[in-house]
Amino acid sequence: MPMSSIRKEIDEALLAFVDRQRPGLLAIGDDLAPLLSALDVLLAGGKRLRPAFCYWGWRAAGGHEAQDGIVDAAASLELLQASALIHDDVMDSSDTRRGQPSVHRRLEAMARDADWPGAAAPFGEGAAVLLGDLCLSWSGEMYERSGLAADRLALGRPVYDLMRTEVMCGQYLDLLEGARGGGSVEAALRVVEYKSAKYTIERPLHLGAVLAGGDEAVVDALRGYGLPLGIAFQLRDDVLGVFGDPAETGKPAGDDLREGKRTVLIALTLERADAAQAALVERRLGDPALDAAGVAELREVIAGTGGLAACEAMIDRYAEQAGRALADAPIAPGARGALGELAVAATARQS
Amino acid sequence: MPMSSIRKEIDEALLAFVDRQRPGLLAIGDDLAPLLSALDVLLAGGKRLRPAFCYWGWRAAGGHEAQDGIVDAAASLELLQASALIHDDVMDSSDTRRGQPSVHRRLEAMARDADWPGAAAPFGEGAAVLLGDLCLSWSGEMYERSGLAADRLALGRPVYDLMRTEVMCGQYLDLLEGARGGGSVEAALRVVEYKSAKYTIERPLHLGAVLAGGDEAVVDALRGYGLPLGIAFQLRDDVLGVFGDPAETGKPAGDDLREGKRTVLIALTLERADAAQAALVERRLGDPALDAAGVAELREVIAGTGGLAACEAMIDRYAEQAGRALADAPIAPGARGALGELAVAATARQS
Repeated sequence: MPMSSIRKEIDEALLAFVDRQRPGLLAIGDDLAPLLSALDVLLAGGKRLRPAFCYWGWRAAGGHEAQDGIVDAAASLELLQASALIHDDVMDSSDTRRGQPSVHRRLEAMARDADWPGAAAPFGEGAAVLLGDLCLSWSGEMYERSGLAADRLALGRPVYDLMRTEVMCGQYLDLLEGARGGGSVEAALRVVEYKSAKYTIERPLHLGAVLAGGDEAVVDALRGYGLPLGIAFQLRDDVLGVFGDPAETGKPAGDDLREGKRTVLIALTLERADAAQAALVERRLGDPALDAAGVAELREVIAGTGGLAACEAMIDRYAEQAGRALADAPIAPGARGALGELAVAATARQS
Repeated sequence: MPMSSIRKEIDEALLAFVDRQRPGLLAIGDDLAPLLSALDVLLAGGKRLRPAFCYWGWRAAGGHEAQDGIVDAAASLELLQASALIHDDVMDSSDTRRGQPSVHRRLEAMARDADWPGAAAPFGEGAAVLLGDLCLSWSGEMYERSGLAADRLALGRPVYDLMRTEVMCGQYLDLLEGARGGGSVEAALRVVEYKSAKYTIERPLHLGAVLAGGDEAVVDALRGYGLPLGIAFQLRDDVLGVFGDPAETGKPAGDDLREGKRTVLIALTLERADAAQAALVERRLGDPALDAAGVAELREVIAGTGGLAACEAMIDRYAEQAGRALADAPIAPGARGALGELAVAATARQS
């Protein structure tokens, strides 16, 4: 099955699941419709990376191409991701996501437009916390109702559980590094590993392989490919967050800088910065009012110190490690090509 | 099994589950310890009402007294409740919970005491959102790992799913009524039904009965008892939120008034208020700076209009309806007494 086709099947499964939930919500009250609309807008975007890796983990371990259940089980990861994005945007006070207003801003705008007596911003944030909770619940529900056999679902559950715990702990560590400030490359890499690499690539592959009944050799090989690829993916995302084209990233230029993210890119820059450069980074990073000139100044330091080049070299190193692991992996032949394509898509210089 | 004994078993199951998760978190990083401590403090309090109703729903439907799995499945509802409380306190900016600082305030204080460069309040709130997410994930994990037979777990899953969706939708409607202001008794009752009555009593009983393999007659009878009892429970909680003793409620006097909660008690008061009384309620309700004198003034209006008496009469009516349903229910004899005791505990004038 070509990659574009599985993308389409995942989209259809996701929309069908949300459509099955819709009447139940509207039966509780018509006034739940804005929550559903906000979710529809969010789910219209996104690259479906996690479901794709789960599906190809399944295929790599010998899972059958045409089994319906795996598409639903894989697509459930997109609801988990929706939950993470909605909550992340509340925590970071992000205004945009996937080129649209973030969920909490959309619901805040609804309250403001309606001119209700209550404050609009806390309403938007509270509603977004609840919609994120709903997506988190629904991800588990979609997995359990995927139609895969009960014994397969039972095999996958510990991986699913671990993945959720890991990503939430990784996000906490990310928050912690941001609050503590000035972390090392090592501390930033630990965040990348848990918040992103395992969650986005390693565990989805692992889950898919386990659901297919893959043996330890296949699972280990896929994880050996997934972890370094996931690190490369996040480092690429961090570079795009500073240097990327807003039309491609769906976020305003320099948003990661404004949010004060303590990325590996920033840690590599600070390792190489002289006192004046370091002072500039510490002063500007996390300034919510950072303008285009401030973004340009920070970009200059990140490139000028060699931080950017060091990060690009790390991306290449991790991507090569993933490539070698993939070449050696004892997996179904059809899957190798698809996983290679996904690796390119995940680490390309354009998002 | 007497009620105090099941409470002890539920506590033990809950602590044992968290203790099994602990090493995994600390292996990711020592700096995850504060999240675990915040959870330990929260779980040390609470009445375990939802697990108790789930357990007695099981017994009512003929489930065996000594089956281990049901205690874990029931106790998992306390992790769902922990998630709801943590997120609720963030949304309401509540300072206290169960007589202790709320989770987000505790983590904010940690950041402030450590004198980190990042802002302490957003750190506390973000960390609490994540801990709530973790508890929500873990509630599902604890249910699935409870040890009940796979076919029983499969029977219970749709009830669990429905319960989660209902409580999240009910919380959204609560937020919406607060933002829109000035709702009817009917609108406030809808919030009570979904946010509280179904979630706290009806669905836990329903879940327990279904897990025991209870037939439709038993399930319907328990739900017919659980819904009105749940409404009476929440109305009692609303009265205690205004008139209760802080030493009993674990919340400062008048906190519900300060938060501007649009409860049935407030709606009943506004129905009966003259123009001056209504203006006073609309002016003072939701004022975060409301002092003891302001609380006293609002209490006087709520009692003076007859809003309080009307609410007490509703509590009596719903509690009687629950009592009649319990008397007629075709349930296992040992369970009737325990469910009667739980009904008294849930609607008593002291919390």
